[in-house]
Amino acid sequence: MDQIQSVSFIGSGNVATHLALALKKAGLHINEIYSQSHENAMALAQKTGGKAIRTIEELDPLVDLYVISIPDGAIKHVMQNFPQVQGIVVHTSGITPVNVLEILPHYGVFYPLQTFSKKSKLDMCSVPFCIEASSKEVLLKLKKVASMLSPSVFEISSDQRQYLHLAAVMVNNYSNYLFRMAFDILETKGIDHTLLMPLIEETISKIKSLHPAVAQTGPARRKDTETIEKHLQLLEEHQDYKELYKIFAQQLTKKYNEQL
Amino acid sequence: MDQIQSVSFIGSGNVATHLALALKKAGLHINEIYSQSHENAMALAQKTGGKAIRTIEELDPLVDLYVISIPDGAIKHVMQNFPQVQGIVVHTSGITPVNVLEILPHYGVFYPLQTFSKKSKLDMCSVPFCIEASSKEVLLKLKKVASMLSPSVFEISSDQRQYLHLAAVMVNNYSNYLFRMAFDILETKGIDHTLLMPLIEETISKIKSLHPAVAQTGPARRKDTETIEKHLQLLEEHQDYKELYKIFAQQLTKKYNEQL
Repeated sequence: MDQIQSVSFIGSGNVATHLALALKKAGLHINEIYSQSHENAMALAQKTGGKAIRTIEELDPLVDLYVISIPDGAIKHVMQNFPQVQGIVVHTSGITPVNVLEILPHYGVFYPLQTFSKKSKLDMCSVPFCIEASSKEVLLKLKKVASMLSPSVFEISSDQRQYLHLAAVMVNNYSNYLFRMAFDILETKGIDHTLLMPLIEETISKIKSLHPAVAQTGPARRKDTETIEKHLQLLEEHQDYKELYKIFAQQLTKKYNEQL
Repeated sequence: MDQIQSVSFIGSGNVATHLALALKKAGLHINEIYSQSHENAMALAQKTGGKAIRTIEELDPLVDLYVISIPDGAIKHVMQNFPQVQGIVVHTSGITPVNVLEILPHYGVFYPLQTFSKKSKLDMCSVPFCIEASSKEVLLKLKKVASMLSPSVFEISSDQRQYLHLAAVMVNNYSNYLFRMAFDILETKGIDHTLLMPLIEETISKIKSLHPAVAQTGPARRKDTETIEKHLQLLEEHQDYKELYKIFAQQLTKKYNEQL
């Protein structure tokens, strides 16, 4: 196998879109794009100079790299109809093991540890790429492609990757939900939520130099049950947020008083 | 009352330390520092050129501003021995109502909406100050002092302030705990947690332009129960984190499927 020069995409969602655009920008040729939504495939094809195809069987078997970037539940289904290709086939999932692709001769994982939205631009240079491969040769090729996009390229096993994915859900999905809770609470009271932005920024800034276990502050850490009770009263209108608040407070109170 | 030129501190913790240093830098004179821990009072006195005192009754009654920056539960107690002063007395609490100080002629609240640690430096310019006062005259004076430290000065009622404090606990304390959870999980598996930093940064960056309710992504949002089940299995060693994960997943799944 020579160096990877051409890429086809299976999927046209957030990750596929960002990756296809970045790979094109890096000088690779985007061949075909297959997607359950042909409309989305056409949109991405137009942006990348690729060709939208209607069935997976139409994939050109002579492309160097095939990137499967679709919901986890759909990967197995796509594999059933996947043509026998000599190029490398990768998926971009955090949680699906690499061996779901093992019926193919060359395969791997190309997992960008980042949150992607079609709507927001993203600096690909800061994205860590987690690579896994069916052979050393494939590994080198995938690392080379990844390093065209970002200086952060890591060899990560399927086992490690699933923990990274879990951790990513916590720091991204769930902290985003906490931000939403906080914004909702303020909006209900007519208070501008942008007041919280400096605090949010500082929260992140702090953990760059201080482990979050050390950086932890607040009523639950100092076992200030009076403040916790007041907060719970304020949450009467938001029973779901109250439930979540309570568990955080319980765990933090317990954790920091066991430690002291 | 003339412009505020001299300040005494009741308390010598994180907030008191940062405020005293910033006010001194802004040109105010730091008079006395009282603290339950005389050692801490002396440390702060040395840093600010103030004088550490051993009892609250020793407070010079002719100072322009007295800043009470102590745990919420201790404010009422301190008020019992507070000398009759003509200067303005403020507390810096997010949750304690302003009227806890109403036995004094001039009082208010001077709440910096930020997380402070003695160990980490902080750019005071980006801190929003939430001000409340017993009179218009006091309000103007407090706003003037706050604006010497930061351009973000807001008049916020005791009622609004408690919601801000609650929201602050969510975006700071609880998101910090999520970061700790994620770091713990990776450390257990020998994976470098700094791999998560670009994702954490992007999570914050996104909500500057997109409301977190819109920015939400992840398995729970798309009702990907298979991934959620896998994550819960990975959390077998961390029962407390598992409990918290489960509630986030439940609430997000419910919220986004009610909305769709």
